Amino acid sequence: MVASVAPDLSDPHYRAAIVDLLGAIGYGEISACERLTEDAGRAPSLADKLELLQLANAQFAQVTPILEGLRELGADPYEAMAPFRVPIDTFHEYTAPADWWESLVKAYVGDNLVRDFYREFAVHLDPRTRSLITSTLVEDRSEFIVDRVRAGIRADHLIAGRLALWGRRIMGEALTQTQHVAAERDTLSEVLAGDVIGTLDLASIADIFGRITQRHIERMGQLGLEH
Amino acid sequence: MVASVAPDLSDPHYRAAIVDLLGAIGYGEISACERLTEDAGRAPSLADKLELLQLANAQFAQVTPILEGLRELGADPYEAMAPFRVPIDTFHEYTAPADWWESLVKAYVGDNLVRDFYREFAVHLDPRTRSLITSTLVEDRSEFIVDRVRAGIRADHLIAGRLALWGRRIMGEALTQTQHVAAERDTLSEVLAGDVIGTLDLASIADIFGRITQRHIERMGQLGLEH
Repeated sequence: MVASVAPDLSDPHYRAAIVDLLGAIGYGEISACERLTEDAGRAPSLADKLELLQLANAQFAQVTPILEGLRELGADPYEAMAPFRVPIDTFHEYTAPADWWESLVKAYVGDNLVRDFYREFAVHLDPRTRSLITSTLVEDRSEFIVDRVRAGIRADHLIAGRLALWGRRIMGEALTQTQHVAAERDTLSEVLAGDVIGTLDLASIADIFGRITQRHIERMGQLGLEH
Repeated sequence: MVASVAPDLSDPHYRAAIVDLLGAIGYGEISACERLTEDAGRAPSLADKLELLQLANAQFAQVTPILEGLRELGADPYEAMAPFRVPIDTFHEYTAPADWWESLVKAYVGDNLVRDFYREFAVHLDPRTRSLITSTLVEDRSEFIVDRVRAGIRADHLIAGRLALWGRRIMGEALTQTQHVAAERDTLSEVLAGDVIGTLDLASIADIFGRITQRHIERMGQLGLEH
């Protein structure tokens, strides 16, 4: 396999990796919609419930373009998503919020962390896939979450320490599951870490993770939490 | 209170009833979205899960116009919805599906039953409210549910009897909670049963319930179930 400097969807190896990538994104969005709706059940008010349901629905609205993208590549979207059910469900199982505050922090830092991750890699993909990914994974900086968490901390300083640890745990679990996926999905990791990222040097890869971490820290800061 | 032959939103009594009605519809849609998403967690396949999530999201998409309608009437949407949380949550608690089949039947006959109910009354309301209600509460005859339930019955005839009883229970609980709401929300029931429906004779009211029941029976029949 020769490294593709200009990734091309007509290359079956590259194409298979993109099917994997879109499958992961698609199931991730479906799963996020389900979890956010479940979290909405813990909302202290109807207004808060509605805010979280709106985030859930915004996630779900992105599923259709991803599934269409998969079909355009000749893939069965359900088969493409299937390999990612276990790692993504496991991520959610290990980061199941214990209360409303943890739900809010997860919705803010977890979902945006995932978006950052995909968008950083999308930059190095073919234009069509890049455009599909960047248009569906728009960062959501929900002001209502910032307002609620900051007010919560003002009312009870003790939650800040707990939620700071919670944010670290979300990042840790996201990295753990990403490593599992990388270990199990050879073609995907070969293409992302080899063919595509192989055209980048190690310093560039370090930069990618540096930027993802930096944005995570910024979001934690916006919530009034230390990383 | 004089019976309004032409219901008018500038009449505070009528307006209060419409605020109640839209509050009930709004909370009903939010609640349906949450329950359908919960039910999607029981789907036997990812494709089925997605179908149910699509229904959930279609319900949620109707929430915003209803809340805007409430704001245009000068009402706080959350206050307007609050009185309907208990009856609607109770309805869902008493009709919590025990398995995937019950989820499907509830999504098909329960949600459309509710839509029929509101639409029948909407005919007698002012044009603006009527148009808002009829445009948001579009009957959904999801072919996928019909396919799944019919296939389920072919594979196991025993579920038909159980699901037929389940359909009756959903209708029964819907009527019970409607009666509770009617008993507790004086203005709403006065306007619907007095000012508005008062301009109709008893035979017309019987016709309304006859049509709602008839459509319920038709939907049960489409699923291959006796009423």
